[in-house]
Amino acid sequence: MLAPLRPDHRELLAARETGRSLPAPFYVSPEWFQHDVDEVFSKQWLFVAAEAEIPEPGDFVTVNFGTQSVIVIRADDNTVRAHHNVCRHRGARLITEPRGATGTIVCTYHSWTYDADGHLTYADAQDSGFDRKCFTLRSVHVRTIAGLVFICLADEAPTDIDEVAEIVEPYLAPHNLAQAKVAKQTDIVENGNWKLTMENNRECYHCNGHPELLNVFFPIWGYSSTDTVPDRLAPVFNRYRISTAELTEVWDRYGLPHRNIFQLDTRPTGFHIEREAMDLAGESFTLDGSLACAKLLTDDLPERKLGRVSMHLQPNMWLHITSDHGLLFSVIPIAPDKTLVRTTWLVHRDAVEGVDYDLNRLTNVWEITNQQDADFVALAHQGISSPAYLPGPYGPSEVLVEAFVNWYITTLRTNMGVAAAEPGTAPMDMGSHMAGKAAAS
Amino acid sequence: MLAPLRPDHRELLAARETGRSLPAPFYVSPEWFQHDVDEVFSKQWLFVAAEAEIPEPGDFVTVNFGTQSVIVIRADDNTVRAHHNVCRHRGARLITEPRGATGTIVCTYHSWTYDADGHLTYADAQDSGFDRKCFTLRSVHVRTIAGLVFICLADEAPTDIDEVAEIVEPYLAPHNLAQAKVAKQTDIVENGNWKLTMENNRECYHCNGHPELLNVFFPIWGYSSTDTVPDRLAPVFNRYRISTAELTEVWDRYGLPHRNIFQLDTRPTGFHIEREAMDLAGESFTLDGSLACAKLLTDDLPERKLGRVSMHLQPNMWLHITSDHGLLFSVIPIAPDKTLVRTTWLVHRDAVEGVDYDLNRLTNVWEITNQQDADFVALAHQGISSPAYLPGPYGPSEVLVEAFVNWYITTLRTNMGVAAAEPGTAPMDMGSHMAGKAAAS
Amino acid sequence: MLAPLRPDHRELLAARETGRSLPAPFYVSPEWFQHDVDEVFSKQWLFVAAEAEIPEPGDFVTVNFGTQSVIVIRADDNTVRAHHNVCRHRGARLITEPRGATGTIVCTYHSWTYDADGHLTYADAQDSGFDRKCFTLRSVHVRTIAGLVFICLADEAPTDIDEVAEIVEPYLAPHNLAQAKVAKQTDIVENGNWKLTMENNRECYHCNGHPELLNVFFPIWGYSSTDTVPDRLAPVFNRYRISTAELTEVWDRYGLPHRNIFQLDTRPTGFHIEREAMDLAGESFTLDGSLACAKLLTDDLPERKLGRVSMHLQPNMWLHITSDHGLLFSVIPIAPDKTLVRTTWLVHRDAVEGVDYDLNRLTNVWEITNQQDADFVALAHQGISSPAYLPGPYGPSEVLVEAFVNWYITTLRTNMGVAAAEPGTAPMDMGSHMAGKAAAS
Repeated sequence: MLAPLRPDHRELLAARETGRSLPAPFYVSPEWFQHDVDEVFSKQWLFVAAEAEIPEPGDFVTVNFGTQSVIVIRADDNTVRAHHNVCRHRGARLITEPRGATGTIVCTYHSWTYDADGHLTYADAQDSGFDRKCFTLRSVHVRTIAGLVFICLADEAPTDIDEVAEIVEPYLAPHNLAQAKVAKQTDIVENGNWKLTMENNRECYHCNGHPELLNVFFPIWGYSSTDTVPDRLAPVFNRYRISTAELTEVWDRYGLPHRNIFQLDTRPTGFHIEREAMDLAGESFTLDGSLACAKLLTDDLPERKLGRVSMHLQPNMWLHITSDHGLLFSVIPIAPDKTLVRTTWLVHRDAVEGVDYDLNRLTNVWEITNQQDADFVALAHQGISSPAYLPGPYGPSEVLVEAFVNWYITTLRTNMGVAAAEPGTAPMDMGSHMAGKAAAS
Repeated sequence: MLAPLRPDHRELLAARETGRSLPAPFYVSPEWFQHDVDEVFSKQWLFVAAEAEIPEPGDFVTVNFGTQSVIVIRADDNTVRAHHNVCRHRGARLITEPRGATGTIVCTYHSWTYDADGHLTYADAQDSGFDRKCFTLRSVHVRTIAGLVFICLADEAPTDIDEVAEIVEPYLAPHNLAQAKVAKQTDIVENGNWKLTMENNRECYHCNGHPELLNVFFPIWGYSSTDTVPDRLAPVFNRYRISTAELTEVWDRYGLPHRNIFQLDTRPTGFHIEREAMDLAGESFTLDGSLACAKLLTDDLPERKLGRVSMHLQPNMWLHITSDHGLLFSVIPIAPDKTLVRTTWLVHRDAVEGVDYDLNRLTNVWEITNQQDADFVALAHQGISSPAYLPGPYGPSEVLVEAFVNWYITTLRTNMGVAAAEPGTAPMDMGSHMAGKAAAS
Repeated sequence: MLAPLRPDHRELLAARETGRSLPAPFYVSPEWFQHDVDEVFSKQWLFVAAEAEIPEPGDFVTVNFGTQSVIVIRADDNTVRAHHNVCRHRGARLITEPRGATGTIVCTYHSWTYDADGHLTYADAQDSGFDRKCFTLRSVHVRTIAGLVFICLADEAPTDIDEVAEIVEPYLAPHNLAQAKVAKQTDIVENGNWKLTMENNRECYHCNGHPELLNVFFPIWGYSSTDTVPDRLAPVFNRYRISTAELTEVWDRYGLPHRNIFQLDTRPTGFHIEREAMDLAGESFTLDGSLACAKLLTDDLPERKLGRVSMHLQPNMWLHITSDHGLLFSVIPIAPDKTLVRTTWLVHRDAVEGVDYDLNRLTNVWEITNQQDADFVALAHQGISSPAYLPGPYGPSEVLVEAFVNWYITTLRTNMGVAAAEPGTAPMDMGSHMAGKAAAS
């Protein structure tokens, strides 16, 4: 069905040099963008929504990836289902609203009607031989983890999602996101390739460009011990160590796991999870670090100062959770140079706007930060589009960027059946976890 | 000159299964769009204007198809001519206005001047060896049928247009469209492939989505006799039969042919023509079915209640004529997902706006209907663009859709020299009518 | 690295017939546009700025060609340098402003810092093995001629720029443009291929479409002697001869060279330079031909009436200089059908707006003319986009158009290693001047 991989693409994929940013075609070529859609976004688990967006049976969101559209809907049995948003009659898009609640899914065009499980329940004026059972909506894999909804568009989804869930649920579940409510959700379109969006997320080497966010971050990225920390950073590193020691006691007291787990480029569903202290008041993502929401996420963790849980998951999400709110990010490629970044702020279901939290104060720092990041991504895309661009070196503080790129290259190689030019340089064998992968040629 | 047909395109064209909507590439791929431009719109007869738009010598309209532009102009001998809108000097577009009146066609760039027959009459500052006769405008086939102007861009046009004219002129000519005037013309751009526009036109299975239009239609599509009509439709079917019987007497009294002729997929210039009764007052396309224009189209048919003549012609037109006005539709592909629909309302040349007709009342129902159809076409295009789309089944009321698709596939196969995968499934031999077709390989 | 030239492109390039406009693909095909970017604009000398735009050390302009961006900056030693506007770290665009002044070039993303010579002077948080000397900005060839800045993006630039400079500097240098100041600069985007912009510039056969400009032009293009001039032009031709004779004395008195040198299609850096008389007051590009700026460009030429120096240089510039101002034009392809035309008006550095010149009077005629030309180019592009377009004949007044097209075809043939279909038709051997050319196959 598919055309064979172009020889120059095969070569490019085989030859990628570690420790440097990718060659330009990966970021700017429409053909590589299609590879990303076909081999990454159509095969991996993707974070698409919070369960809090669809609390009741019949609640739905639609998620659009390029030309694909998926209905994520809560069924009567309270489980989450996902269906392709395409009528089985003549293909009309069924739901155009981004979110809503409905008893049945009715096609506007000729009134074909489906239930939340996707079964065709009505189709007017058909011959007696017409069998409704042949026209169930095409379903999509769906999986929830601690209140996060993931889908996979492949026929067979990567199976390691279960292992990942087992590891990360103990970190996430205590924060009760599944029972939270959406305080705000924003979409911005960045003028750059989705991988530049992810790379930008995966380092804080650029965080001098985020003066508002920087208030609550300890700017010690790239330094692992006092030995290597430059003198100017010694005070902040010390503050970081004290704060971490204090918080570790708190975390242990509540049985909250806090080991830094780094599996970003060693499995199909690559991820990283950690708990970190924060600077200033150390409570939340505000200008002074104090709470943004007076009502904490859960009564079971009655501590204002909990630091943050941060998780990064390949290919398209990251999150931060403080004591008072959760902050979810999902990334959707739109075009080689256009990427949607969706940010969702979650607070306790019973928190009241204007009483427990001021919406502007809750969202202010990350709305500013998102716009700054969008500017950085646009600059990177502009420069990389020049024929004069050469892949440049990652420094010590860009280790998560390298891990993302590494995961990306390995995933493409695995899914497209391309071996590394120098055997042994691949950092993982992802094949054993990977369902539905292309046969190696 | 042309690249050979891609093997996957050849296979897709050979394999099309009848009774279902087309596979997605036919609707969404830019390459198939180019096939449609090259093999359908550049080879078939296309409806482009009413003669009423260019009543006097020198009157012209320009018709743009993609990158093509054609001048349709009435010459001094009152016949209609068509020329490519391209200067023979350095190729400048000659006329940019959509319509107007002119004695000569003067290029704005260097003042080369042509007459209405396309002859170059002036070119300044040339050598003595310059021969104006070598630079006549390139002409386009043009044909009028009962006041409708058709052009064909091919070197050799399908010859069956004469047979079609002979059949349909007796239906159309009594309504005097050639002597009418344009009351209004609107252009809307639908966000879908042109074939979705045509398919949408070719069934009323979706007409519950047209509550305004539905007033004057009998919603019995898909049912051919009282035996199969469901109980809820029995009254309307009965009303339809009575109305048809009454009108048949009227039609016969005036010698108006009314046999339903269905040749949509059995000839190059496929068409369908019929006379039908209408509901409520039964006179015109208004909310209550009563006249929209007090002055009827012709004094020779002094009956308010005549039902409608409807004609569908492949690939790009349909029309309806009632006693008081004619309603012409032409369809122009702009891009894989953009289609121009032009609607023209014709009334008696002497009808006076504000006296004989209210323009809003005349156009209201179809302006609403056009917008509803545009929405349906956009939904269909969105859904079909998803990789999850599968061709779905046509029901009994979608027989004209199947005929359109069948004609389309057969035309492409004929023009591109591709045989059906299963010999014998093609419903017609169009080759004998088809001039200028590609050689079978 | 590059894909081999498509056979149909090779054939088209080999077959071009002289004396006619080019076949349509040269103007409208995206692939040919890419050839133009790769083989013309990435290999030839391009006019990009006036030195007057960057008078002081640290002054810069950025020049964007398609996806390329180049910083043209005056260094501390007062020479002009050019660097690719791409950070050597992760490729971010360094400068986004079109012009400005700066001590150092600092990347917004991660603060890598370069000096005006392109050396990396700062990169935070790197390993001890990091060598800044490996990450100098990639440089671009740059050359100034009498106040005009040219760059070349190729590894090896055409060497005949030195010969061209030697010929044209005696014409240009006396007018002191290097010491002038920018009175105004405008950018307009024409909706046509860049070659149509150039062709339009290279003839005045269309100048009846420029009634304002025509005031000061003698409309005798295409006629070389009184023998061939038509009667209606005899008076103007006579006026032209008298005016030229008078001016020749003036030019000789000041030692200003005035021989018409026509090397447009006989060398890689093809050019044409001449001095011409102007009509009416004959001093400047105003409606009545009188001065637009009371302060002349240089005290060394205290003559209001000097006629004009006009230079055309392949592929992307032309200029006119009168006694009171210089007028520079540069052309940048944006897309197959989009072209940037930048116009720069230069006056004496000490001329004061509102005192010595009225800005509107200075720019009025050419702002109108530019818009008229943009309309012509758009018409030409529209018409040529039609499949009905055929290359048409150049007349006697279009000799510079033919020279441009000839130069273009020969340059592509040379750079792409394609021989003319009929040996001996090529008007020049450009290979001996041409560095970095593709090997002939």
